[in-house]
Amino acid sequence: MNNFDFYSPTYFVFGKDRENEVGSYVKRFGGSKVLIHYGGGSVVRSGLLDCVKKSLEEEKIPFVELGGVKPNPRSGLVYEGIDLCKKEGVDFVLAVGGGSVIDSSKAIAAGVVYDGDFWDYYQGKRIEKALPIGTILTIAAAGSEGSPDSVITNEDGMFKRGATGDAIRPKFSILNPALTQTLPAYQSAAGVTDIMAHLYERYLTNTTEVEVTDRLIEALLLTMKHEGPRVIDDPNNYDARANIMWAGMMAHNNSCGVGRTQDWASHDIEHELSALYDCTHGAGLAVTMPAVFSYTMNHNVMRFAQVATRVWGCQMDFEHPEVTAKAGIEAFRHFLISIGMPKNFEELGAKEEDIPKLVDVLCNGDGRGGSVGGFVSLNADDCTKIYQMMV
Amino acid sequence: MNNFDFYSPTYFVFGKDRENEVGSYVKRFGGSKVLIHYGGGSVVRSGLLDCVKKSLEEEKIPFVELGGVKPNPRSGLVYEGIDLCKKEGVDFVLAVGGGSVIDSSKAIAAGVVYDGDFWDYYQGKRIEKALPIGTILTIAAAGSEGSPDSVITNEDGMFKRGATGDAIRPKFSILNPALTQTLPAYQSAAGVTDIMAHLYERYLTNTTEVEVTDRLIEALLLTMKHEGPRVIDDPNNYDARANIMWAGMMAHNNSCGVGRTQDWASHDIEHELSALYDCTHGAGLAVTMPAVFSYTMNHNVMRFAQVATRVWGCQMDFEHPEVTAKAGIEAFRHFLISIGMPKNFEELGAKEEDIPKLVDVLCNGDGRGGSVGGFVSLNADDCTKIYQMMV
Repeated sequence: MNNFDFYSPTYFVFGKDRENEVGSYVKRFGGSKVLIHYGGGSVVRSGLLDCVKKSLEEEKIPFVELGGVKPNPRSGLVYEGIDLCKKEGVDFVLAVGGGSVIDSSKAIAAGVVYDGDFWDYYQGKRIEKALPIGTILTIAAAGSEGSPDSVITNEDGMFKRGATGDAIRPKFSILNPALTQTLPAYQSAAGVTDIMAHLYERYLTNTTEVEVTDRLIEALLLTMKHEGPRVIDDPNNYDARANIMWAGMMAHNNSCGVGRTQDWASHDIEHELSALYDCTHGAGLAVTMPAVFSYTMNHNVMRFAQVATRVWGCQMDFEHPEVTAKAGIEAFRHFLISIGMPKNFEELGAKEEDIPKLVDVLCNGDGRGGSVGGFVSLNADDCTKIYQMMV
Repeated sequence: MNNFDFYSPTYFVFGKDRENEVGSYVKRFGGSKVLIHYGGGSVVRSGLLDCVKKSLEEEKIPFVELGGVKPNPRSGLVYEGIDLCKKEGVDFVLAVGGGSVIDSSKAIAAGVVYDGDFWDYYQGKRIEKALPIGTILTIAAAGSEGSPDSVITNEDGMFKRGATGDAIRPKFSILNPALTQTLPAYQSAAGVTDIMAHLYERYLTNTTEVEVTDRLIEALLLTMKHEGPRVIDDPNNYDARANIMWAGMMAHNNSCGVGRTQDWASHDIEHELSALYDCTHGAGLAVTMPAVFSYTMNHNVMRFAQVATRVWGCQMDFEHPEVTAKAGIEAFRHFLISIGMPKNFEELGAKEEDIPKLVDVLCNGDGRGGSVGGFVSLNADDCTKIYQMMV
């Protein structure tokens, strides 16, 4: 196991009706003027926004609002949010929505207290300072409610980049599984896929002797395998939603990923797809992961055989471990299809002829060094072949 | 799943040689005068104490020392520590040792800033305020390095009671697995047992539909099942020590126990044994748990069958689930014996004739309401039978 630091100071407030307590948590964590940041009309229609405002008013905390965050959140709205916060003297950013809203909130919170262009952070500068952030999560997927990460799409070229720093970890996150019950099946399945991707990215390691984190990752994969189909069958299943919601947080606060190298090739390869085609990140991952895994399987057949037997219930073929390894990847592929995820470029809305452009931005674009991936280092040629496998 | 709050803000510093950084973490978390609290001579002989002092001196942080913490830490030394801190103007408590040292440090840190008798907290008053605490862990067992809990033995009657509160969660904990390599096999095995007990106490729940936390607990039990025997066979196996050390923290910071009722009958029943006979807590648990589980098994046979199949590799007997449930308890019992733990009162040094006294203090003593356990409520009669099963 490698040396590591682990720090996850977010206060989690989990369960039914907990969003009604938001005002008290903003107060507890020092907010005296709040930006409520959100996406489209669903938080308005559901009454969630009114409930948030009521709770803030009860605590006599003034607020301003900025809606309009889109999936694959854009840099343009971040600049707008930064200006608004400066103008209004906001000292606390409250994200009400899913990962895109939280990531946009994190970018704003960091940008407000930074003299330069906030995009510097998305080119590799670590975020050391930000306004405090709180979240009310409405989609179990990104894990941004408990992570120090944010991903933003730069509108000047349409590419996605990430930034990180403990300063943008939420001070509190309110997780009410009931708020995710209205999510359409496709979005729910994309969330399940994203959570499983966060687990696989950590599972694909070159560090040996990491039994505890292997087992924890497998535990969360098993949970998703069990609970994913249950929410697709019955969107109102509160308990299945609850199990997924906690698994989604645990999958990405890094408690299961410490002390080991990680991969993140699938995320990098997917990010160019959702940036260019504006597809749902989880759906893009559903197409990307089986291709990446098949391409890199021979780098460590036993690792793929392990997840195949422990998670996917494959019988170990002791004479031909590669058979088991492959069976596990196929089982995962079929699982993703079974919950309604796309299986190829066509179903995703991506185009074969764009592959050279995708590869170029992926490997040679802003802030990149010619290759991606921590499990196997994949250069432009590898990435071209992987995109071609997805066609 | 039940509603819950989860908060684990401790900064974890994990790996080889990390104890050399202690001064910088004390500084970061606001310590300007430190009490170094420790146990016996092992931290002196190993050179760890010198290393801690050197790191504090490098940061120009003055300190005072208080050694002498015994396993099953006593109230007398806590009073002494509180007086010392007040006299010397200490504003940070640094625990260097295992769970006993950390628990004693937590009691001192809470007592220094409390006007009344610190024992009030161990009679049910929640700890809301304490000096900041840091730890350098030398035994993987208690999980106190990441928990809001402390257990102290009251010398006025020799009984153990616990206190809790987020205020006594360590600000930072330094976990170097190499520091645990010198631990004798018996103490290592007792640590393994204690960690597994923290998992079973959470596993035995009356809350249904908690797949995610079930799976996480099973993951950590599987880790202990794999790594426990490896450290007994080879005390210098760094990686096995490392996996156990992280599992020990995760087993008790409650990330795997949220949203569900928990049991804690085994801990309560054991505490009277280690208080009276001064045996090692983990060794007492090794004798207690199989008895408690056998006694309560029929309350939920399927729960015991689940852990039997998922952790202990038992084949599910679908016609007779109780056969599988029992096989799982027996497998755990044999596992504990295989790593060198005692199997009955005699091996533990406990006496059958003391059972009435044990039961009386357990059920009717200071702060108790006549029964223990959250899985099955066990009254004095039940506890008598359980102690008798351990003879």
